[in-house]
Amino acid sequence: MAASLLSPVSSELDVPAIRHGVEACLNDFLDRQRLAAAQQGMPAEVVEVLKDFIGAGGKRLRPVLCVSGWYASGGQGETAPVLQVAASLEMFHAFCLVHDDVMDGSLTRRGRPTVHRTLAHRRTETLGAPAADRLGTGAAILIGDVAMAWSAELLHTAALTPGQLAAVLPLIDTMRTDVMYGQYLDLTATGRPTDNLERALTTIRYKTSKYTVEHPLRIGAALAGADEAQHQALSAYALPLGDSFQLRDDLLGVFGPPSQTGKSCLDDLREGKHTALIALALQRADRAQKELLNTLLGRADLNEEAADLIRRVLVATGAQKAVEELIRTRRREALDVIESGLFSPATASRLRQLADDLTLRTS
Amino acid sequence: MAASLLSPVSSELDVPAIRHGVEACLNDFLDRQRLAAAQQGMPAEVVEVLKDFIGAGGKRLRPVLCVSGWYASGGQGETAPVLQVAASLEMFHAFCLVHDDVMDGSLTRRGRPTVHRTLAHRRTETLGAPAADRLGTGAAILIGDVAMAWSAELLHTAALTPGQLAAVLPLIDTMRTDVMYGQYLDLTATGRPTDNLERALTTIRYKTSKYTVEHPLRIGAALAGADEAQHQALSAYALPLGDSFQLRDDLLGVFGPPSQTGKSCLDDLREGKHTALIALALQRADRAQKELLNTLLGRADLNEEAADLIRRVLVATGAQKAVEELIRTRRREALDVIESGLFSPATASRLRQLADDLTLRTS
Repeated sequence: MAASLLSPVSSELDVPAIRHGVEACLNDFLDRQRLAAAQQGMPAEVVEVLKDFIGAGGKRLRPVLCVSGWYASGGQGETAPVLQVAASLEMFHAFCLVHDDVMDGSLTRRGRPTVHRTLAHRRTETLGAPAADRLGTGAAILIGDVAMAWSAELLHTAALTPGQLAAVLPLIDTMRTDVMYGQYLDLTATGRPTDNLERALTTIRYKTSKYTVEHPLRIGAALAGADEAQHQALSAYALPLGDSFQLRDDLLGVFGPPSQTGKSCLDDLREGKHTALIALALQRADRAQKELLNTLLGRADLNEEAADLIRRVLVATGAQKAVEELIRTRRREALDVIESGLFSPATASRLRQLADDLTLRTS
Repeated sequence: MAASLLSPVSSELDVPAIRHGVEACLNDFLDRQRLAAAQQGMPAEVVEVLKDFIGAGGKRLRPVLCVSGWYASGGQGETAPVLQVAASLEMFHAFCLVHDDVMDGSLTRRGRPTVHRTLAHRRTETLGAPAADRLGTGAAILIGDVAMAWSAELLHTAALTPGQLAAVLPLIDTMRTDVMYGQYLDLTATGRPTDNLERALTTIRYKTSKYTVEHPLRIGAALAGADEAQHQALSAYALPLGDSFQLRDDLLGVFGPPSQTGKSCLDDLREGKHTALIALALQRADRAQKELLNTLLGRADLNEEAADLIRRVLVATGAQKAVEELIRTRRREALDVIESGLFSPATASRLRQLADDLTLRTS
C-alpha cells in the first residue's frame, strides 16, 4: 500500500491511488469472505454478486472524501486504517444502492441489470418469472443487508485505536440515520411530485449532502483527531457542495445521456421522483404545462417521446435554468468557505479540486 | 434500573426483570430518536411504526440469553451496559423480522398486520392498492434498515469499556453474517422443498441456533470477560439447544394454533418452507404422499382443508414423530453439557431453566 495518497510533486490528492487502495481493500475483504463461506458450506452467490456489483464501477466518491477529510485535518503516517474505513463507506454505499434499486424497481445500474434483476434472471428458467422475481427481490434485500453488516465489519477490523473508534462511531451512527431518513422522504414523495421545493431540498440535504459529502469528510477528519472548529469548517464546505452535486445529478437523471450516467434517463421521470427540478417546474407551470406534468410524471410506461414533452416543459418554465442557478450559488458558497482562511493553503487547494470534481461533472 | 437481574432469593434469572429493563432501554432510545426526528423535521412514522412493532411483544429471547451469558461468565455490578447491549440485540431482531416478513410476503406477525402491510394500508385510500403496496414494501425495507442501524447505535452508546467493545464487536459481526446466510439458505430453498435434510438442518443452525442462542449468550459472556473455555462451553450448550428450539418452531408453524403463535399456521405451508419436517416427510413418503406434498406445498391459495391433508401426511409418514425425536435428542445433548461440570451450580441451574423455556414451549 502506498505510504501517501498525495501526489509526491504537488501534494494534490492522488485520486486514482485512493480508488486503487480502496478497491484492493474491498477485494481482499471479499476474498476472505468467499473463503469463509466456502469453508462453512454457505452459498457463494452472496459474495459473487456483491463483488460484481462493487467491481462494476462507481466513482468511489465517499472514500475519496474520507481520505480528503483525513488529510484536511492533518492526517499523516500509515494510510491502511483510513483506507479501510474509506472502503467501509463504499461497502455501505453498495448496501444503499442495492436497496434503493429494489425500492424503486430499477432495472439497470452502472449500465448493467440491477442486483435484484440479476438474481431473478438466474432463476427465471427454473422457477418461472413471478417466483423468480419474488426470490430475486428477497435475495437482493438480503445481499443489501449483508453489505451493511460487512461495512461495519470493515470498520471494526480497520485497526483503529480506541480513541479513533470512539471518535468515528457517533459519526457513523448519524450518517446511517441521516441517509435512511433522506431515503424515506424521497420514497414517500415519489409518485406524486408536488411544487414543495423546501421538501425536495431537505431530502437532498439528508440523502446526499450529509451522507455523501459531509459525513465522509468528517469521518476522515475524526480519524486524524480533528477538533470541533475543523469539523465545523468541513461541514460549512460540505453541505452546499453536496446540494449542488445532487442538483446536478437530478438534472443528469432527466437530461443526461444514459451512456454517461449508466442509468436510463427515463427512470426518474417514470418513478415520478419529487426533485427540486420538478417542484420548480410545477411552481412555474401554466395550467396546460401543469396538466402535462401531472399526467405524465410517474407513468411506468413513459416512452422517449413523452419524456421529451416533459423535458420541454422543464426548459420552457425556466425550471432547468433555476436549478443551474441553484447549483452555481451553492457551489459558490462552498468555494467561499474554502477562501475564508479556515484551511491551510494545501488543504484549500485539495478542497477546490474536489469541488470541481463534484459539480462540473457530466456523469 | 435494578442492580441485579437475579432473583434475590434463589439466584435464578429474574426473566421478567430482564424483559422490563430491556424494554425500558428500547423505549428511552426510541423516545430520543422521536425527539431528534421532530427537531429535524423528519417523518415521525419511522419511530412510530418501529415502536409499535417492538412494543407488540415477543419473548425478548436474545436479550434474556445475553444477560444469562453475562451471569454465566461471572458478570456482576452495574447492569445498565449489559441491558443496553441486550436491547441492541432485540433491535437487531426487529430488523430481521421486518425484512423477513417483506421477503416472505407475510400478512401477520404477533397477531397484527406486518410492518409492510401496515404501511401499505395507511396509503391505500390515497394512492390505490398497487402503489400503496409498493410504497409499503419500500418503506418497510427502510424501517428494517433503520432498525439495523439503531441496533448498532445502541451498542455503541452502551458505555462499554474499550476492552468490552473490542471483545464484543467480532461476535456481533459473526452474528450478523451467520443470520444473513441462514436467511439466504432459507429463502432460496423456499417454494421448492426437497428431501435434503442436511440442508434444512444447516439452515436452522445458522439462522437460529447460532443467531438466537449461541451468539447472544457469548456476547453477554464477552462483556463479562469470558475466556476461551467459557465461550466453548456456552457454544456446546447453545447449538443443540437452538436446533431443538427451531425444530419446535417448525412444528408449531404447521400444527400450532395461531392463537398461541400469533402467526397463521398456513404461512409456512403456503410459502413452501424447506424445513426438516418437510424434508423428512419427503424422504419417507410413498408415491401418492409425495405427489400430494409436491402439489400442495407452496401454493399461495392453500386453504385449511388442503393444509389438513398435508398435516396428515406429515403424521402418517412419521415425519412429525421424527422431528419430536430430533428435538428430544438435541435437548438432551444440551442438558448433558450442563451436567458436564463446566459450569458453576448456580449457572447450571439457570441454563437448565433456559433450556426448559426454549424447548418445552407451546408458542
